[in-house]
Amino acid sequence: MTTVFKGAEVTAELNANLQQRTEALKVKNINPTLAIVRVGDREDDISYERGATKRCETIGVDVKKIVLDATTTQDELLAVIENVNKDSSIHGVLLFRPLPKQFDDNIIRNALSPAKDIDGISDASLVGVFADITTGFPPCTARACMEILEHFKVDLVGKNVVVLGRSLVVGKPVAMMLLAKNATVTIAHSKTVDLADVCRAADILIVAVGRANMVSEKYLAPQQVIIDVGINVNEDGKLVGDVNFADAEKIVGAITPVPGGVGTVTTSVLVKHVIEAAERI
Amino acid sequence: MTTVFKGAEVTAELNANLQQRTEALKVKNINPTLAIVRVGDREDDISYERGATKRCETIGVDVKKIVLDATTTQDELLAVIENVNKDSSIHGVLLFRPLPKQFDDNIIRNALSPAKDIDGISDASLVGVFADITTGFPPCTARACMEILEHFKVDLVGKNVVVLGRSLVVGKPVAMMLLAKNATVTIAHSKTVDLADVCRAADILIVAVGRANMVSEKYLAPQQVIIDVGINVNEDGKLVGDVNFADAEKIVGAITPVPGGVGTVTTSVLVKHVIEAAERI
Repeated sequence: MTTVFKGAEVTAELNANLQQRTEALKVKNINPTLAIVRVGDREDDISYERGATKRCETIGVDVKKIVLDATTTQDELLAVIENVNKDSSIHGVLLFRPLPKQFDDNIIRNALSPAKDIDGISDASLVGVFADITTGFPPCTARACMEILEHFKVDLVGKNVVVLGRSLVVGKPVAMMLLAKNATVTIAHSKTVDLADVCRAADILIVAVGRANMVSEKYLAPQQVIIDVGINVNEDGKLVGDVNFADAEKIVGAITPVPGGVGTVTTSVLVKHVIEAAERI
Repeated sequence: MTTVFKGAEVTAELNANLQQRTEALKVKNINPTLAIVRVGDREDDISYERGATKRCETIGVDVKKIVLDATTTQDELLAVIENVNKDSSIHGVLLFRPLPKQFDDNIIRNALSPAKDIDGISDASLVGVFADITTGFPPCTARACMEILEHFKVDLVGKNVVVLGRSLVVGKPVAMMLLAKNATVTIAHSKTVDLADVCRAADILIVAVGRANMVSEKYLAPQQVIIDVGINVNEDGKLVGDVNFADAEKIVGAITPVPGGVGTVTTSVLVKHVIEAAERI
């Protein structure tokens, strides 16, 4: 029997813990607050913003929205970032990217104070993840994978964990976080020779490639734990992961569903980071 | 027959190339210059300084030595770093660490201008390695491993490379550099289950654990390429690597010796970084 690692279970536990911590902060007159900075009206951003706002409300975290026109200049956006950096009533900042073409992504990312960089976009946050030190925050999606493994008590020490995908948002940071938990980590990708064999040998397989149903039967083995980070729209307009769920259900020990898996936990991690940022002060 | 990947061969090729580039810089009135900042008189530091100075002379790179008393204060060292940062006649800075206890390592490391951070000690350099962008420089030892693999034309694409050790100076950065060359990279360590099996399955094995002769017969397989980063003193007072060379010689396809392997290449990489720093201006 394959266990379905439902995101909702992880989120329920996380939210309960975060509500308590929010209460404790409020007793000290700290009102944990997320600022969302959005440039333009990309549908993806608005949808994520809606989910994040709702999750903040559930937990008791305030949200300030700063919506800028798609034609905003770099200097205008830098001024906005400087303001949120200075504003002591704001603890965490979510800045949607990719930004329109007039922006220098490197300059914008690193203008954000690492202390408020709750989605791990600044160099300081990346160093924190790479060096395993508390500077900034890891990207929320990478940490969501770790929260799921922790919630379901998946033993990581010494285990063969294969991370399929090597992006700066998921693959590389989650590899470093797994290493910090003493897993043996393999980073595999499109150029890997015998990729299916490498994946099949894993105790735990984390897939973040962004290709619908790419991981099929031949990549999978009994007892494996699969974390599917992909969110893709298939030819029928349905949301599906990077892993063929029907194949996985016949074979593996446990898998996160899409939707309802990593994505839903990511939103709670975002709020967790706002609260951690407020607690660090 | 096991091929011995002699560092001297790599260094000869590197030095010839670097001499040409130094000449080209001098034609443009740029005199590539390394500043060595040493606090105290640790024997290791002095020995490395001697080697680096000699290599710089061979290639035609100038060296400025700044030797400070072991009782130097943090503010005094910061002032020295500010001076070398500002001094346009200095292109690269080697700052010996670990520093005496009165220093905050994080503050000192990050005071150094990333443009002159030729041994990859600053956060900016670490981000460069993690994100595969040109910011600062990778640690010299990690890059020396890559130079050896390149010199001996070892194919990396898709290959199963196991990095044994996960330090910020070798294991993690070399893993990222291998990934950038499209290798499939496994980071293994003391907690890895069936470590010998994991190592034996590798096409290429990079060992950086700092334990004399730890990697013995059962870790090794025919055709493997072994890069031995370790430099240890054994019970007879002899320099030995992390890999049992006698065992390896009977089994593997190629191996770097200790001494005369990675260490000697590291010194040339240091000089290469000084020249790259001068070329970037």
